[in-house]
Amino acid sequence: MRNHDWSSALSEWQATLGSPAVVTEPHQLTAAATTTFSTSQVVPAILRPASREQVQECLRIANRHGIALYPVSSGKNWGYGSSVPARTGSVLLDLSRMNRIVDFSEELAYVTVEPGVTQEQLHAYLIENKSGLWMDATGSSPRASLIGNTMERGFGHTPYGDHFAHACGMEVVLPTGECIETGYRRFPKAQTGALHRWGVGPSLDGLFSQSSFGVVTRMSIWLMPKPAHFQAFFFRCDHEWQLGPVIAALNRLRLDGTLRSTVHVGNDYKVLSGLQQYPWDETGGQTPLTTAAIAEFRRKRQFGIWNGSGGLYGTRAQVREARRLLRAALAGKVTRLTFLDDRRLALLRRYARPLRLLSGWDLSQTLTMLEPVYGLLQGTPTDRPLASAYWRKRGPIPAAMDPDRDGCGLLWLAPILPADGRDVTRARAAVEEILLAAGFEPMISLTLINGRAIACVISISYDRALPGEDSRAMACYLQLADRMHGLGYYSYRLGIQSMAEMETPESYLAFLQTIKNALDPRGVLAPGRYEPARRARGAS
Amino acid sequence: MRNHDWSSALSEWQATLGSPAVVTEPHQLTAAATTTFSTSQVVPAILRPASREQVQECLRIANRHGIALYPVSSGKNWGYGSSVPARTGSVLLDLSRMNRIVDFSEELAYVTVEPGVTQEQLHAYLIENKSGLWMDATGSSPRASLIGNTMERGFGHTPYGDHFAHACGMEVVLPTGECIETGYRRFPKAQTGALHRWGVGPSLDGLFSQSSFGVVTRMSIWLMPKPAHFQAFFFRCDHEWQLGPVIAALNRLRLDGTLRSTVHVGNDYKVLSGLQQYPWDETGGQTPLTTAAIAEFRRKRQFGIWNGSGGLYGTRAQVREARRLLRAALAGKVTRLTFLDDRRLALLRRYARPLRLLSGWDLSQTLTMLEPVYGLLQGTPTDRPLASAYWRKRGPIPAAMDPDRDGCGLLWLAPILPADGRDVTRARAAVEEILLAAGFEPMISLTLINGRAIACVISISYDRALPGEDSRAMACYLQLADRMHGLGYYSYRLGIQSMAEMETPESYLAFLQTIKNALDPRGVLAPGRYEPARRARGAS
Repeated sequence: MRNHDWSSALSEWQATLGSPAVVTEPHQLTAAATTTFSTSQVVPAILRPASREQVQECLRIANRHGIALYPVSSGKNWGYGSSVPARTGSVLLDLSRMNRIVDFSEELAYVTVEPGVTQEQLHAYLIENKSGLWMDATGSSPRASLIGNTMERGFGHTPYGDHFAHACGMEVVLPTGECIETGYRRFPKAQTGALHRWGVGPSLDGLFSQSSFGVVTRMSIWLMPKPAHFQAFFFRCDHEWQLGPVIAALNRLRLDGTLRSTVHVGNDYKVLSGLQQYPWDETGGQTPLTTAAIAEFRRKRQFGIWNGSGGLYGTRAQVREARRLLRAALAGKVTRLTFLDDRRLALLRRYARPLRLLSGWDLSQTLTMLEPVYGLLQGTPTDRPLASAYWRKRGPIPAAMDPDRDGCGLLWLAPILPADGRDVTRARAAVEEILLAAGFEPMISLTLINGRAIACVISISYDRALPGEDSRAMACYLQLADRMHGLGYYSYRLGIQSMAEMETPESYLAFLQTIKNALDPRGVLAPGRYEPARRARGAS
Repeated sequence: MRNHDWSSALSEWQATLGSPAVVTEPHQLTAAATTTFSTSQVVPAILRPASREQVQECLRIANRHGIALYPVSSGKNWGYGSSVPARTGSVLLDLSRMNRIVDFSEELAYVTVEPGVTQEQLHAYLIENKSGLWMDATGSSPRASLIGNTMERGFGHTPYGDHFAHACGMEVVLPTGECIETGYRRFPKAQTGALHRWGVGPSLDGLFSQSSFGVVTRMSIWLMPKPAHFQAFFFRCDHEWQLGPVIAALNRLRLDGTLRSTVHVGNDYKVLSGLQQYPWDETGGQTPLTTAAIAEFRRKRQFGIWNGSGGLYGTRAQVREARRLLRAALAGKVTRLTFLDDRRLALLRRYARPLRLLSGWDLSQTLTMLEPVYGLLQGTPTDRPLASAYWRKRGPIPAAMDPDRDGCGLLWLAPILPADGRDVTRARAAVEEILLAAGFEPMISLTLINGRAIACVISISYDRALPGEDSRAMACYLQLADRMHGLGYYSYRLGIQSMAEMETPESYLAFLQTIKNALDPRGVLAPGRYEPARRARGAS
């Protein structure tokens, strides 16, 4: 890029968007280039378009001057790079001002949104409109973008937990600035743009997810009717051997339709990180938290080696039958299985204090653990899980959390495993071995996403303020990724540091490159994003 | 194409495949170019590769000589063009010899197949292996290809009725002869190629469905665990006004998860065409069958203006609760609602004869109507619906049906409607008006595919042997398509005669063309297939 191009581009963007929407203030640029792990990317400017037309014009200008743009919706891509572009020098295209809910149907159960619409915004909208519909929410952040998460193929907790499988009718600005609409939405008169995923002819939505082929500026998201009755279930396993049989049993119920929603199972370290920060006092400042120490926490704070949660949705009789089947399936495989609904939750809340006074059992701890999950199972966003990003930080967690700003170290690796006990056990052993050896706690969550596969999310949580931790964490991440790929467990989603990491055959690389060259001849849109390297790193 | 190219290509194909696999015998070429409506395409040769490598080589040869290839799996694309290529002069790439079931997992409930594997072949395989899994089947033909139907995004009757939503891990030969695998299957070590639909990075499967971008030579298909209990339900409406409320009520149950499978609703003409051929005697040879005449058949043969079917799957209690909810939802909206399970079916079969003798009620007629549907709801393929292609033929239906060979006239138009009563009623009125005026019976089936949309399949059934009928039927088809598109109801799938018919915006056309040029620079793969025209025909 020549200097002349840069200054021309800047003034053209300013003319298009207005000066306040073209950010070059150094502090803001530094903030935008900061995430929860070490990066070297420089962000030279941030563009904040307010409309699809402005997005198109931004791209046309980028093409004229050969300058890369990197779109983010809300930039809350925690653990994977937040708002930092995959390649240095990319101008950030921040879509958060485009935050309109443009269409909503109670009857046919969908909403059409722009990329700036957040989880909490849609949640508030549904309440405000006294809607009988539930959204699905991820545990990431209430301020996360719905479109951003869907295009990263994120998942949540309800029967609509596979976000990408419940979205359609996209408006996409192509790298050249052209705009298309997918599915039936391409037809101006279509009545079914929000109602059907494939449309007619090649189905294009997949092409724009986890890619650098377009900027999604509008999308329809399906919503679920609030069931007549809802119950959450929680279970814990106190023995490691229980994990395999439990996964197999749960998966069977996912497959046969008894469990309609994703089921989440977290290990002890994962649970503890959701309850409190690192126990610096109890450990005398030693890290990592040993297996002996975590065992003590399990006893004291009453959770298991593995801890599961899920929802039962339907009429009273449907829920009752699901409960019966779940009980039968988990009998002898879990240490404890409990059910929770609104009535029982109110009761527990009322008696938590007297119970503690009488018996010494601190129920409020349990409630602290359960309530955010209980909400997520009904599509209520929460920022509780985000607090775990502060796990290794010494100070208290601030009221307005911002892990990027606060030097929280967080790297997520999310391999997909076959939904069977053997693979889960094998993956767990590898995680524990590698993370503990590197000085980090092996925090694992397992999500039964579709009856056949499990999304395993591993968090490497650390304090960026400590010298050397950034590189130790990254080395650990790379080692773990290698091991997982060696075992045949490949990530469902990638952080900006690892877009190129997987051993991809030459023909596949060539295919992606052909598409990229055709759609983005000047290579201005999100270079490096989900772009496998030509020479893969050697996997074990 | 120069003559020289043609003879070189032919001998290269012969060298690659062996002479018997390169068909140029005129009768076979004519048969391959014949479908259930008028076409002018000429098929100059048929290639019958036996392996993926041979498919690759066929394409490389096609590229060298600039000759178009048109892939078909089994060529049973009835009503949409059978095995006839979209463009004349295309050499048929017949994949039916590639018919291996290459992988199967009872535990994780999937099968991996080649394009020649038919519905009946997989069904037999599951029985042979004493599998506890069910496939999904379309009503089209037991000899229809699983991959062919899935890539056309066809649908069936069970909870896995949306075929494209239950398939993944494709092996695709690109137009240039290169080969890629999609999803996790691209990684040689992946354990999850058959278990997860998106993989990592851009998700490509959609691109290869209803397109000319690749030849799918292998695919994993998900299978459903046979439920502990199964019941079918059947209902009829004797009044036209019932349709809207019934659709709304059923859709609500689809949306809330009570009805897990697609629900099919057919009108009176559709049902009659499944029971018998055109009543030439009763009508004195007059066509079309008047509304008065069809009313008489409804009375005599005991079906409704609208007739629905669906399945209830689960444990005994789950099925019982679904039945209760269905009854409540349809109360007052249907004339009759009945349930059928294996026990009841056996009973009916036993008493059909004595009952007829005693009461005169011919139960066997009802059974004839119900049994194929009862099987389809459990994933058992049937060729019964195919018999309706002989509706207007004068002679008897042959034991080995072949509608192409036998001069059956059949054109299908399949618009997607919003799942509400108003749209369904509006579409139905348009179909009835246009088809009856053109001299054809308005046969309609409505399938509640996803809780938000309905696939409306309209058959124009006629006798190709009658002079002028081919062009009358096609004119009627075009008029109907125009009307539907004018109402905003666009097809989910297209016949070879109508690939270019929809008014598509310029930017979308350009996008498709860009991809096509990039992947198929010489334009040799399936030219014209799902390729919208640059200038659309004017819609109303």
